[in-house]
Amino acid sequence: MATLNDIGVAAAINILTAFAFFLAFAMLRIQPVNDRVYFPKWYIKGLRSSPLVNGSAFASKFVNLDLRSYTRFLNWMPAALQMPEPELIDHAGLDSAVYLRIYFLGLKIFGPIALIAFTVMIPVNWSNNTLEHSGLTYSDIDKLSISNIPIGSHKFWTHLVLAYGFTFWTCYVLKREYEIVAAMRLHFLASDQRRPDQFTVLVRNVPPDPDESITELVQHFFLVNHPHHYLSHQLVYNANKLSELVNEKKKIQNWLDFYQNKYKRNPLKRPSLKTGFLGLWGNRVDAIDFYTSIVERLSRDICGEREKVSSNTKSIMPAAFVSFKTRWGAAVCAQTQQSRNPTTWLTEWAPEPRDVYWENLAIPFVFLTIRRLIAAIAFFFLTFFFMIPIAIVQSLANIESIEKALPFLKPIIEVKFIKSFIQGFLPGIALKIFLLFLPTILMMMSKFEGFISLSALERRSAIAGLAYDHPLCLPLPYMAPCRIPKTIGVSIPMKATFFITYIMVDGWAGVAGEILRLKPLIIYHLKNSFLVKTEKDREEAMDPGTIGFNTGEPQIQLYFLLGLVYAVVTPILLPFIIVFFALAYVVYRHQIINVYHQEYESAAAFWPDVHVRVVAALIVSQLLLMGLLSTKEASQSTPLLMTLPVLTICFHRFCKGRYEPAFVRYPLQEAMMKDTLERAKEANLNLKGFLQNAYIHPVFKSADESDSESESEWERSPALVATKRTSKRFTPMPSKDGGSVLSLDQVNDECLKP
Amino acid sequence: MATLNDIGVAAAINILTAFAFFLAFAMLRIQPVNDRVYFPKWYIKGLRSSPLVNGSAFASKFVNLDLRSYTRFLNWMPAALQMPEPELIDHAGLDSAVYLRIYFLGLKIFGPIALIAFTVMIPVNWSNNTLEHSGLTYSDIDKLSISNIPIGSHKFWTHLVLAYGFTFWTCYVLKREYEIVAAMRLHFLASDQRRPDQFTVLVRNVPPDPDESITELVQHFFLVNHPHHYLSHQLVYNANKLSELVNEKKKIQNWLDFYQNKYKRNPLKRPSLKTGFLGLWGNRVDAIDFYTSIVERLSRDICGEREKVSSNTKSIMPAAFVSFKTRWGAAVCAQTQQSRNPTTWLTEWAPEPRDVYWENLAIPFVFLTIRRLIAAIAFFFLTFFFMIPIAIVQSLANIESIEKALPFLKPIIEVKFIKSFIQGFLPGIALKIFLLFLPTILMMMSKFEGFISLSALERRSAIAGLAYDHPLCLPLPYMAPCRIPKTIGVSIPMKATFFITYIMVDGWAGVAGEILRLKPLIIYHLKNSFLVKTEKDREEAMDPGTIGFNTGEPQIQLYFLLGLVYAVVTPILLPFIIVFFALAYVVYRHQIINVYHQEYESAAAFWPDVHVRVVAALIVSQLLLMGLLSTKEASQSTPLLMTLPVLTICFHRFCKGRYEPAFVRYPLQEAMMKDTLERAKEANLNLKGFLQNAYIHPVFKSADESDSESESEWERSPALVATKRTSKRFTPMPSKDGGSVLSLDQVNDECLKP
Repeated sequence: MATLNDIGVAAAINILTAFAFFLAFAMLRIQPVNDRVYFPKWYIKGLRSSPLVNGSAFASKFVNLDLRSYTRFLNWMPAALQMPEPELIDHAGLDSAVYLRIYFLGLKIFGPIALIAFTVMIPVNWSNNTLEHSGLTYSDIDKLSISNIPIGSHKFWTHLVLAYGFTFWTCYVLKREYEIVAAMRLHFLASDQRRPDQFTVLVRNVPPDPDESITELVQHFFLVNHPHHYLSHQLVYNANKLSELVNEKKKIQNWLDFYQNKYKRNPLKRPSLKTGFLGLWGNRVDAIDFYTSIVERLSRDICGEREKVSSNTKSIMPAAFVSFKTRWGAAVCAQTQQSRNPTTWLTEWAPEPRDVYWENLAIPFVFLTIRRLIAAIAFFFLTFFFMIPIAIVQSLANIESIEKALPFLKPIIEVKFIKSFIQGFLPGIALKIFLLFLPTILMMMSKFEGFISLSALERRSAIAGLAYDHPLCLPLPYMAPCRIPKTIGVSIPMKATFFITYIMVDGWAGVAGEILRLKPLIIYHLKNSFLVKTEKDREEAMDPGTIGFNTGEPQIQLYFLLGLVYAVVTPILLPFIIVFFALAYVVYRHQIINVYHQEYESAAAFWPDVHVRVVAALIVSQLLLMGLLSTKEASQSTPLLMTLPVLTICFHRFCKGRYEPAFVRYPLQEAMMKDTLERAKEANLNLKGFLQNAYIHPVFKSADESDSESESEWERSPALVATKRTSKRFTPMPSKDGGSVLSLDQVNDECLKP
Repeated sequence: MATLNDIGVAAAINILTAFAFFLAFAMLRIQPVNDRVYFPKWYIKGLRSSPLVNGSAFASKFVNLDLRSYTRFLNWMPAALQMPEPELIDHAGLDSAVYLRIYFLGLKIFGPIALIAFTVMIPVNWSNNTLEHSGLTYSDIDKLSISNIPIGSHKFWTHLVLAYGFTFWTCYVLKREYEIVAAMRLHFLASDQRRPDQFTVLVRNVPPDPDESITELVQHFFLVNHPHHYLSHQLVYNANKLSELVNEKKKIQNWLDFYQNKYKRNPLKRPSLKTGFLGLWGNRVDAIDFYTSIVERLSRDICGEREKVSSNTKSIMPAAFVSFKTRWGAAVCAQTQQSRNPTTWLTEWAPEPRDVYWENLAIPFVFLTIRRLIAAIAFFFLTFFFMIPIAIVQSLANIESIEKALPFLKPIIEVKFIKSFIQGFLPGIALKIFLLFLPTILMMMSKFEGFISLSALERRSAIAGLAYDHPLCLPLPYMAPCRIPKTIGVSIPMKATFFITYIMVDGWAGVAGEILRLKPLIIYHLKNSFLVKTEKDREEAMDPGTIGFNTGEPQIQLYFLLGLVYAVVTPILLPFIIVFFALAYVVYRHQIINVYHQEYESAAAFWPDVHVRVVAALIVSQLLLMGLLSTKEASQSTPLLMTLPVLTICFHRFCKGRYEPAFVRYPLQEAMMKDTLERAKEANLNLKGFLQNAYIHPVFKSADESDSESESEWERSPALVATKRTSKRFTPMPSKDGGSVLSLDQVNDECLKP
């Protein structure tokens, strides 16, 4: 059992680490040379082109010589908090702003709870000496926990009352938050400028027709069934192979650049390499010629493939992006059933163009169900096998087991400090490492499941991630009989120390590490020194990264769960959680303002998930408390506790009915309003031109428009840019055909370009 | 324990009863005087105006003197089966035709199952003598049941395999049936003629507006948000008080007629009555004058009330029937969310005019949730208190308990025959009596819950009814620990005899009694002799009745459950169930053709409920078998059994996804097709006129249009009739207002009529 002392050591270590990170960050960020690593957002938005240097000397281009700036090394924190929310929304999108609200929600919920818990419960728990008299080994932490209260004592009424209080408070805050976010979303949707996805619906599972091609079929179907609203459609191509080629070309191109730079540096010897494995053996060739040849070959392949895709009907999927003349028309089509057979002509809102996950659009709809099934099974097994390492970690938590396992380590372990280190620090970090590569697996799985938008993918794998964080809260040795809340109830308080360390490692040091961005920093400097030739290359070299909803959200949810579970049981845990939320809020706010670059804008579509998970955590905590109290022979309280989950579920259903529709459906009133407004503002708007190529597969846009650029275009004025750009390159189909199909000439013109 | 002998007695009694009923029916139906009782449907359809009499003698008007017709007294059975299904649909509507299919489904499922069970399982069960050696009391029935198989025997594999076989067969039949019914529904919807509900949507919870009246509000909202489709709307009035008055007037009118007839018969003395309670005391007055005065007073009140309703804005509910120019427009409006706030402007398909349950339209939407809650609680208590009588009945099932309870009865009971009677007959009939008045209670509850269409009401109370039939399958003495399937598993086989008797009483005699229609027969003749003056009165005197989905369906479901549960456990039960299904099929087919008159046409909207409940029954049976086998130490089979429910659930989800949409949503393609067709056929159709008063509260239609008539009008050519009739009486609003509001003059013209 970890003592307060061990916790102290762990706390010290973590706080120091955190501070080290902050210090390093403060140092590095003011170096002009790192400017693009720590302020990429501003570069992408075009508000910053070169490092702001105060000195004009040559050196000051790379190193900040202004010593004053070193003194106030934490001044980024207030800076991060200054930007008001509306501005933040303009700057980084609604998703980011609402994502920050999750952290703030944590503070709102746990702040008051902690206050009450400390003033009321800690004294109640402390004023007993059950544990001394019980033969159990216990830590001082446990003395502050519920386990210190004698069995059958009337003091449990305090916990009962507080459980009610905390539940009501949490629900109240949740409701208000849901209300606000829903309003924000509706306001955002109402106020933001014209976007292709407002007019577009994704149609899937177009039934095959012997006489008509897909494009004719789609056009006819919608001309018949939405005569006044149908505008045009964009076919979906299976261009996965093509995009693979393009990516490979990019990679090879990098190597070519690398060697060319190398050659430029010392023109005396041309760089050469071995063609064998990892360039370790094989015959030596001239590197530049070698890669040039490959690049040329790839370009040829790409042209060929591109031609094939656009000519071959096999590569046309039975799906299409159908655009309508009005938002109203799109809203109607997205919300209604089209055909007699409910499994064909399936319509759903099209995701934002940059949010589309093109690979999965190529999956035939029939396979999706199968894939789902497989994914479910895989998920089950993954969970099962994942338990094992976690269980091992858990066993690491108590030093005795180590000594048993590796007796020869005993002398070392017995050293006071190392012991504390192991006790208070190792388990958390080991667990963290295990959990690190989870998101990747989960992301792969969700991709396999065939979701067609990045936002959906991230939300999905966030849900899956949750499934792994939750078990952590149920001590795994007890996993098997965990159906019986008793078992857990008993062990919950005993696990408090473990979770405290986990919070400090994952929550404190982890978050602090996030701001340092070591990986991007290194990669940037590597690229910068080897690959970068032009400014544009430098642009590409910097990797702003994104919020990563799929990784961040489950973590937050874990903390919500921990907080709610331990609020009544071991309130001492709460301050640690509050510190985490506060720290994370500041850090991520800074990152969102200066670093992250959002990939897509889902207008906070993820909030219902967040809400329902906090509610779920609430219910779990109530059930666990019930189990715990039942062991304490405070059974007369059980019926009262029983009602809590019921009430909570009622609350959830109310919220669902009241607010969720704002996140899943688009009210016709809204649509009509915007349509009318728009018609009034710009009567002669070329909507068709605007939508023409919004949903073209990115690989059909030529290389010089990197994703980041096209994205930022969407941010500025999508309409004009999109149209200008594409009209230059793509020749639209003969007018009679509503849908635009890639025609050969445009393909060639693609290929003719240098 | 009931022996085969007891069962024999019970069977004899029931078969005799059934035959007695059939004989009586055969006698009565060919008496011309009963013609309107046994063939009302034909009168309502206007295909029959006077009894078909062969002899022309006066007597033969009342008594059938043709002796030949007595000889072939069962010839109605083949007659009932002759009419082909399409004709049946034309004749009695899709609901009735599909309702019959439920009985037929029972035959399709249990026929083959019984065959296999008898060839395979009975021998397997019989060829043991576990029960002899066990000390248990057991009946010969049990010797044919699974309980006769030694513990841990390998013979259980037979049951396991058969459980799989039966499940697959049931699912297969269910799927095919679902497919067929869905197709029938779609074909019906596509082929049937224009109905107001195809164009109309019910809008509820119109948000209050200080400046605009409801009618303006509705009109403006839909003119704005469905500009090209909105046609008109019909406000919803709270006319409950008015309709009460109208009904009371009708009742008094009956009395008046009664006394007038009486006076006509012997003009010497004017009839008189005492005004006091039940006419037992109070001062004696002239009956005719008395009732005439009351009628006049009521007519005055009605006029006053009608005026109040139509003038007073308070009686206008915040709801409206909104009609659209096209089915497409209505389908869109019904399937989409209208306003930002998801709890206002709620749209749903309007039920058929004659299907509307007007009383509940007057309930403010906000109260509905509260009512639901109250209903749920009431339901819980009802269940609870209902258990007690049922439990008593159950205890009656074994004679020993009676003897214990009433020892003085011992000598009587011990008489062989009486004993058998009690054993095999009493429990079933007693239980039946208990269950008889359930539907009424449940119907009241569903009405309280505020459903707005009769079909919904009936479906709802059918669901509730199920909740009471199911416990019957779990022997109630064991109710408390019934969570543990073991307890039930053990007792299931022992309860077989009880259920056999129940099936015979409820299923055989009950169904045979249905065809006799004693109650309507008596009532008709009473009315006929006392009230009837004109042909029209005679029309009204006959009460065709309806299928009564809410009472019939749970009964069928009970039999499905019994059959599926006992198919593997005690196959001997199956023949009894098959006989029930066969008998019921013939009887109800006859009734539907000749007697019942459908109140509404929901186009088989109830089928998904039927389907899901059979699936549920299947799962219950699988779980019970699992519990049973687990007690038989055939635990190695459990995992195999576990998979069965999972598979069944998968099957259900597949069916839900594939077929259910056909029952809940109206595909735009369909709508568009019918619209186009119609436009082509009758270009200049006055749709507005057609829809104008389709959704007027019935009490605003004057008395001379009795419900039955207006209904039959819907059946014939609703459009013309409705328009002619109403245009004569109602003056539509000034054209600028799309909605028609009752105007004073029409009210007066109502009241001026003699």
